Amino acid sequence: MSGNTFGKNLTVTVFGESHGPAVGAVIDGLPSGIRIDMDLLLDQLNKRKPAGKISTARREKDLPEFLSGVKDGLTQGTPLTMLFRNENVRRDDYDSLTGKPRPSHADYSGFVRYGGFADASGGGHFSARLTVPMTAAGAICLQMLRDKGIRIGTHIRKLHHLEERCFDQDDLLKDIEKLDTRLFPVLEDEMEGKMKEVIEQAAVRKDSVGGILETAVYGLEAGIGEPVFDSLEGLLSHALFAVPAVKGVQFGTGFGLAEMYGSEANDPFIVKEGRVATAGNHNGGINGGISNGMPVIFETVIKPTPSIGQKQRTVDLETMTETEIEISGRHDPAVIHRARPVIDGMTALVLCDLLMEKYGRAWFEKERI
Amino acid sequence: MSGNTFGKNLTVTVFGESHGPAVGAVIDGLPSGIRIDMDLLLDQLNKRKPAGKISTARREKDLPEFLSGVKDGLTQGTPLTMLFRNENVRRDDYDSLTGKPRPSHADYSGFVRYGGFADASGGGHFSARLTVPMTAAGAICLQMLRDKGIRIGTHIRKLHHLEERCFDQDDLLKDIEKLDTRLFPVLEDEMEGKMKEVIEQAAVRKDSVGGILETAVYGLEAGIGEPVFDSLEGLLSHALFAVPAVKGVQFGTGFGLAEMYGSEANDPFIVKEGRVATAGNHNGGINGGISNGMPVIFETVIKPTPSIGQKQRTVDLETMTETEIEISGRHDPAVIHRARPVIDGMTALVLCDLLMEKYGRAWFEKERI
Amino acid sequence: MSGNTFGKNLTVTVFGESHGPAVGAVIDGLPSGIRIDMDLLLDQLNKRKPAGKISTARREKDLPEFLSGVKDGLTQGTPLTMLFRNENVRRDDYDSLTGKPRPSHADYSGFVRYGGFADASGGGHFSARLTVPMTAAGAICLQMLRDKGIRIGTHIRKLHHLEERCFDQDDLLKDIEKLDTRLFPVLEDEMEGKMKEVIEQAAVRKDSVGGILETAVYGLEAGIGEPVFDSLEGLLSHALFAVPAVKGVQFGTGFGLAEMYGSEANDPFIVKEGRVATAGNHNGGINGGISNGMPVIFETVIKPTPSIGQKQRTVDLETMTETEIEISGRHDPAVIHRARPVIDGMTALVLCDLLMEKYGRAWFEKERI
Amino acid sequence: MSGNTFGKNLTVTVFGESHGPAVGAVIDGLPSGIRIDMDLLLDQLNKRKPAGKISTARREKDLPEFLSGVKDGLTQGTPLTMLFRNENVRRDDYDSLTGKPRPSHADYSGFVRYGGFADASGGGHFSARLTVPMTAAGAICLQMLRDKGIRIGTHIRKLHHLEERCFDQDDLLKDIEKLDTRLFPVLEDEMEGKMKEVIEQAAVRKDSVGGILETAVYGLEAGIGEPVFDSLEGLLSHALFAVPAVKGVQFGTGFGLAEMYGSEANDPFIVKEGRVATAGNHNGGINGGISNGMPVIFETVIKPTPSIGQKQRTVDLETMTETEIEISGRHDPAVIHRARPVIDGMTALVLCDLLMEKYGRAWFEKERI
Repeated sequence: MSGNTFGKNLTVTVFGESHGPAVGAVIDGLPSGIRIDMDLLLDQLNKRKPAGKISTARREKDLPEFLSGVKDGLTQGTPLTMLFRNENVRRDDYDSLTGKPRPSHADYSGFVRYGGFADASGGGHFSARLTVPMTAAGAICLQMLRDKGIRIGTHIRKLHHLEERCFDQDDLLKDIEKLDTRLFPVLEDEMEGKMKEVIEQAAVRKDSVGGILETAVYGLEAGIGEPVFDSLEGLLSHALFAVPAVKGVQFGTGFGLAEMYGSEANDPFIVKEGRVATAGNHNGGINGGISNGMPVIFETVIKPTPSIGQKQRTVDLETMTETEIEISGRHDPAVIHRARPVIDGMTALVLCDLLMEKYGRAWFEKERI
Repeated sequence: MSGNTFGKNLTVTVFGESHGPAVGAVIDGLPSGIRIDMDLLLDQLNKRKPAGKISTARREKDLPEFLSGVKDGLTQGTPLTMLFRNENVRRDDYDSLTGKPRPSHADYSGFVRYGGFADASGGGHFSARLTVPMTAAGAICLQMLRDKGIRIGTHIRKLHHLEERCFDQDDLLKDIEKLDTRLFPVLEDEMEGKMKEVIEQAAVRKDSVGGILETAVYGLEAGIGEPVFDSLEGLLSHALFAVPAVKGVQFGTGFGLAEMYGSEANDPFIVKEGRVATAGNHNGGINGGISNGMPVIFETVIKPTPSIGQKQRTVDLETMTETEIEISGRHDPAVIHRARPVIDGMTALVLCDLLMEKYGRAWFEKERI
Repeated sequence: MSGNTFGKNLTVTVFGESHGPAVGAVIDGLPSGIRIDMDLLLDQLNKRKPAGKISTARREKDLPEFLSGVKDGLTQGTPLTMLFRNENVRRDDYDSLTGKPRPSHADYSGFVRYGGFADASGGGHFSARLTVPMTAAGAICLQMLRDKGIRIGTHIRKLHHLEERCFDQDDLLKDIEKLDTRLFPVLEDEMEGKMKEVIEQAAVRKDSVGGILETAVYGLEAGIGEPVFDSLEGLLSHALFAVPAVKGVQFGTGFGLAEMYGSEANDPFIVKEGRVATAGNHNGGINGGISNGMPVIFETVIKPTPSIGQKQRTVDLETMTETEIEISGRHDPAVIHRARPVIDGMTALVLCDLLMEKYGRAWFEKERI
Repeated sequence: MSGNTFGKNLTVTVFGESHGPAVGAVIDGLPSGIRIDMDLLLDQLNKRKPAGKISTARREKDLPEFLSGVKDGLTQGTPLTMLFRNENVRRDDYDSLTGKPRPSHADYSGFVRYGGFADASGGGHFSARLTVPMTAAGAICLQMLRDKGIRIGTHIRKLHHLEERCFDQDDLLKDIEKLDTRLFPVLEDEMEGKMKEVIEQAAVRKDSVGGILETAVYGLEAGIGEPVFDSLEGLLSHALFAVPAVKGVQFGTGFGLAEMYGSEANDPFIVKEGRVATAGNHNGGINGGISNGMPVIFETVIKPTPSIGQKQRTVDLETMTETEIEISGRHDPAVIHRARPVIDGMTALVLCDLLMEKYGRAWFEKERI
């Protein structure tokens, strides 16, 4: 299938351009009879929304229009289509950039990919606007997992030079539930203010910052994932790189494993509350690509937003001469906090799909109301 | 498709268990009339082979038996099947481990996944033996790319605490060609001895080490990759996590981007030799999931081999009591150098597949002899 | 991927319910820079539209709303989404049918499939309304093929007991061009009146008729199709059975081959105008699942429309007792003529996808303007 | 995925050439812990084998060599690879045919498809030899279905001009069980002799015959199949056209529906033994692409074997002149009886895959021993 569809039994197809009429998603393979938790869905969309001084001034309602697959609030089981109209479009901001690709954006690579025929205004199909339907589709997957006792949480473990504590794997559910209630995803209360200040300071300097998100999955049973290619790590990373600005994914101790000895890095098996567990979790809950029953833990790095207000060097593609641009459009000095619900959602999509492969669509239909 | 097949137009299906009759691969979608470069194929297999004191004592001939798809050394275009018999099997080494999963191996997660019915001896289907057909399939892809001027190289940028220089992106082809000639993949001559010493020292202590591999792709045109889900990063990471022991993938500056400002991390566009290029390559040659014409650069972390000779804690799955094991089988104190041809091969597979989507199978058939 | 998406490099995803807000399609993998031939697209939609006494009284404008993937009339190369609002919805017609499945409709099987949660009104997701986006997507594929010299035509070879001549394979393009201009797809002029009369007579008796469509592909080169599973026949039939009311597909002489000897059925190879051809075409232009350069010829049987006004036996699913219904909704005494553009379109989709596999997306982009 | 792999959750990949070292299949996605019923598997292979005067003189042992995925007779759940060596190869028979394509064979279309690089001897990858692994893979699927109470049977409803009765749908299991015991698949005892005589007479005249197979599925629950594209009809036909010589597929009354009125063709719903059933089964147990709980009934037409001993016209591809050939290789005057286990197997593959989508792999693992 083509690049805008992901999944096997449960598939999500996304479409739309930033300055076109709409963005949206078609979700196929859903169980029927599931009451869509609109609070959860809107809450996830809200967590993705720009807000305050640390975000772009572009404001969109982002209310889903259900075109198919839902009746009286219940999934029909047929393809569910959600549409999000683009209403607050300001093309003018981008006019001066035509033919002058913004550094580290998809402007140039997308220009080549589509032969110049794709509407690049506002980033076009590469815009973070596409994460609206991704988030909404992910919210439905999160709901399906929650009904099975599986929960996902993501927080900013690092923002520029600021670091906060990792998930407490011994009390993981508590951390995840705390994050559910927070618009700005941090575990340490004082970090919200500190991090927002760093973002605002960057904004003042017409600059941007990035960071590292840590994600945890609670309640996933052992034995999920497929060797060789459809490992949990392979599928998750495939989906995670669909989130704009992600440039790296690591599981468990990740790149930190490079400096460890095997005797340090190995997670010994123990018996805990009558079940097999591991002492330590350097492997992020995954052995051989398959979940081992421990929390699945991974990190993604979010690069600093490429759209910055400072003057930058680029090339005029028409004349093939070097030039400079200043990006005057509305943009974010940081997107890391807004990437959170997208990452949670893409993670949920992968897990739903794998669980569906094991237990079938019918298993999820037990949650029908 | 199921988890042991990867690719869209060009697909690889792998099969086999470590202590079963054979491992192998079926490659489908190959262009016809390509003379298989057996020197390259055997060279890649050789680079994967254990050798000397830094490797397992298990020795296999690893000569491919072509069962289909090849005639007179030329691809027929039909599914190409390569078989590698397992000959040097010593099941006894693993008998004492039955029901006692080795820490950080797939023994436990695989046990749950397959309900105890999969042959776990020697790691079974999770064994690194599977990388033999993956390497062989990858070698054919590497050849196809080479005929199009695209080259791939991987070296050990970091082994435990030892680091060597990164690729010289201004003279990348030279580095890649140097690596082609080296069994132990380092760019700095003196690093081979130093790193081997670290590995041997770990072996003496019945321990193991890991590290970081840096991979570079030379000659890939701009515009390759598909938004949203089939980004170059998404597809590559999906394939790379099929390589055992990989626990993280990062593109360009990767996790290092977390501490940078946008003004530092952005790669300005410049004109170089009449073509668009970037000054700096923090994005690893990929913007918005699409190649931008610069070298594609990524790193993978290889965890220290989980098989170590030291006594380790584990659980007796039958009695559900904690116990200890000593792994007496033949194993590697490091696999990082042996992972190299697998990573090169999986990278090549992804690129061939994407180029085939753009230019079709017929484009590669121009290289027919 | 899930059941509402079809294709490999070029994929079509359809969605919608008959009495929901809209039906639509997402086409992914399109070449960029193709000017959509709106005349062709609307003409195809028009050929699908009900008209006159031989069709349902439900009238929809069926004008596509492009939500993504098109700019200034040109394909962007990004997912193209077309929406068709359902405006002329009369739910009341179906209210008396709730829980009483219409014979030979998907009411009962769909009820079981979706656990009663799918909106069955008007046929729901099983409605022939879904053929609107299928036809529109197919029209774009037809355009792509036309630009490569490949043409597709379909006519009613048989309507109930009335038969007309088969395609003249020696002057095939003429026949196809004649059909292009005809709203009612027959090759023999007098057949239009005769067949319409049969349909109208059936309508008067609150009954319906079916028939056989013959389809021809002109200009397809030899060598297209993939053994074993993705044979031209396998892929075409897979797509053709997505057209409602199709209950059989046969290539060339099809079921007629059962009574022939090999010496009669074989198509000898000959040289014609310097190229390899066959004398006769019992195999419908396909040998071993691969096109042989002759016209591809196949027939599909369209069953009589199951919606008839006569009293029919059925079961009240709630009480599980037998009962009777009279379908009072708007329906067609025949759909065979309206199935024509859907079949042409689905055929075109399969051929585009296979040609894209061989020649790549770039080949079609040569037609960019 | 490429054309030699079929299935979603349960996939079969086939490989091999008629005169190469071997043919085989990789089955991925199998449940673990299933004891392979070797009697059933060998019985199916036996039903495919040539025998007596009505078949080719080529005799192969056709015993599967299990290369992976099986241990102690139980499926491991990992990819199961079966190999069948080609031992009785007589290339000489085909030498005189080089460059002179046999009419109605894949020789010419395959020559173009593979640019002349595919080994065409004995039909190469297009040979009916490929049905050996297809049959074996299908046998495992048949076993999985049987354990769920689903049975499949196929008989020769028509051989040339000879017809026998259709399945007795009211006593279907009895008919299917009768066929299980018969090497020559007919329901009427006296038909075996009559049909064999027709085949032998054709053989004497160096000619061949075809016919029509009727297949019935017993015990399939209602609600299986996916609209729009992955209808039961779409998936079955896709798989069935992988069987060589199949040129048409029709469900229920199939092409006979063309001459019926809706009032005749519709299958009224009734209550039978407390369950919903239909009076009549013109729709072959499928409404809207979804099973309705009635027997699934379809027919496939098998064309007369194209390999005949008579002199035939063809083209010398090198000189592009018309010439004649006499096929002296070993071939079958009829293959219809041998196609039976392949059709049963491919049908079973589709049904297993769809049931796995609904109920998951775990459902089949309940049959573990």
